[in-house]
Amino acid sequence: MLSEFDLIHRYFTRPPAADTRIALGIGDDCALLQPAPGMQLAISTDMLVEGRHFLAGADANALGHKSLAVNLSDLAAMGASPVAFTLALSLPTADADWLAGFSKGLLALADLHGCSLIGGDTTKGPLNICITVFGELPSSAALRRDAARPGDDVWVSGSLGDARLALAVSLGELPATDIDPELLALATKHLDMPTPRVALGIALRGIAHAAIDLSDGFAGDLRHVLERSGCGATIDVDALPAGPTIAAQPQARRRAWTLSGGDDYELCFTAPSHLRADVLAAGLAADTAVTRVGSIDAASGLRLRDRDGNPLALTPASFDHFLTP
Amino acid sequence: MLSEFDLIHRYFTRPPAADTRIALGIGDDCALLQPAPGMQLAISTDMLVEGRHFLAGADANALGHKSLAVNLSDLAAMGASPVAFTLALSLPTADADWLAGFSKGLLALADLHGCSLIGGDTTKGPLNICITVFGELPSSAALRRDAARPGDDVWVSGSLGDARLALAVSLGELPATDIDPELLALATKHLDMPTPRVALGIALRGIAHAAIDLSDGFAGDLRHVLERSGCGATIDVDALPAGPTIAAQPQARRRAWTLSGGDDYELCFTAPSHLRADVLAAGLAADTAVTRVGSIDAASGLRLRDRDGNPLALTPASFDHFLTP
Repeated sequence: MLSEFDLIHRYFTRPPAADTRIALGIGDDCALLQPAPGMQLAISTDMLVEGRHFLAGADANALGHKSLAVNLSDLAAMGASPVAFTLALSLPTADADWLAGFSKGLLALADLHGCSLIGGDTTKGPLNICITVFGELPSSAALRRDAARPGDDVWVSGSLGDARLALAVSLGELPATDIDPELLALATKHLDMPTPRVALGIALRGIAHAAIDLSDGFAGDLRHVLERSGCGATIDVDALPAGPTIAAQPQARRRAWTLSGGDDYELCFTAPSHLRADVLAAGLAADTAVTRVGSIDAASGLRLRDRDGNPLALTPASFDHFLTP
Repeated sequence: MLSEFDLIHRYFTRPPAADTRIALGIGDDCALLQPAPGMQLAISTDMLVEGRHFLAGADANALGHKSLAVNLSDLAAMGASPVAFTLALSLPTADADWLAGFSKGLLALADLHGCSLIGGDTTKGPLNICITVFGELPSSAALRRDAARPGDDVWVSGSLGDARLALAVSLGELPATDIDPELLALATKHLDMPTPRVALGIALRGIAHAAIDLSDGFAGDLRHVLERSGCGATIDVDALPAGPTIAAQPQARRRAWTLSGGDDYELCFTAPSHLRADVLAAGLAADTAVTRVGSIDAASGLRLRDRDGNPLALTPASFDHFLTP
């Protein structure tokens, strides 16, 4: 049987990154980071639990990808550039196949973003994955939740709702036979291997005011921005960019799941309306679709409208880990 | 029932720290740290799992303390000064009493070390506590595991073995009635609420060569230093500072549990022999006992001796989460 140290060495230790910001990587009591002068360090932590964030028996490679992707998505929402991360892992058994798949998915995404694994912890216990990620950005360049201003446009990257549809199929809420297999495969990929919008976040520095990443659902996450910024918003629900799979669904489901499906890992951001051309250019530069879906108001509250401007009486709920069964 | 956001707000949100290094704390996608010019950031992460690192039903206040203490101990072992930490928490239920106790123990220790909670994540699941801690230290000042040199003395802070004895009693390996109640209370405090040797680590900058914190047992942890430094050591097992409770135990048990008991959270460090007076002065300045227990050799391997210099044939094992039942 593999010892804890064998495990770490076999699957997670690689040659030290050629990165002057990483003064010391895996293998000591602490890792050492040396941020470039004038740069701030952006830090986020996410914990993924079996049965809550992913289903038992989830593909290990996809899980490795997603565990880091949800953290990179938080960096993207600040406009930060990825530098490094730590991984704490609780495993019921030291299963070599699982570890090989998990580390492959994890490190492939890490390499894509130049984000080095610099430390971690492994222990025996119920499956639990906790990543803490470090990014850097120039001082005062962060896209903060409290920076939305009345008159700003509200934008969304990519598309919404497909991850929720794939989850519904895997939970048996929707029969798989109702969905075109190719579209379902796309939706499942969105759920299992989301693309963190890192390049877009960086491209939006100096253009966007506020930003947040969409993990719990558009409406609930936007509310965090509104609360912290002390303002409100009017949103055209039919303008929310529906993913290719959810777009083919009935209107009520499409509206509900683009509005509050969760697990989208897109960015919602606000920007002054005179910078629309710059936002579109940032989207092009980052090869990421951006869609304008509404505007920030001085009056508090979230107002939902249909494409004709009529009020919609939807009551979107943000996902809450302790209230959902 | 408390929502996830209520939880975070009620128990873990406090006024922003008056700390210029913390540009942004809890409440956004990321926290923002701004290290002082010329300083490196030391980072460590530890995951604590019920049934593995603590027993079911463990006192919440003590658990809050210990969760941060084991991370601060890693900073101490680098000579880093605490700045901030993130907390990811998986909980079976949102139990207000438990959260009140846990946050009290956690934040009391954080306050003692000027270490601010800057971000986190809460989710529903089997009890799991993952803290990532951030400290700072001048560039090139870190006490690294690979820095031991032949001729160095080997030192240990505080005392060893009491935590292992308290664990033995709580597991029923030793009858509580065999131990003086006052001594047992001391040992239990060492196990449940260890004191991270932060001040000593900082005082040893520029004096000690290598350092490591003792979490898995003296012998196993020292081996990590020897392997990374490419050298060996000769240790006087009877010189290992026995805690007041283990000191009263039979010789064989005292030797075994000071040598490889685990959960001591003391520092083991090496320093040039011409700096003995400086090491003792650092211990005095940090109000922490320091004991010289052996020396670093050019020849690899760990040689154990009794107080008369005779070889001891003990085979100390380091704690391994996947090999112990």
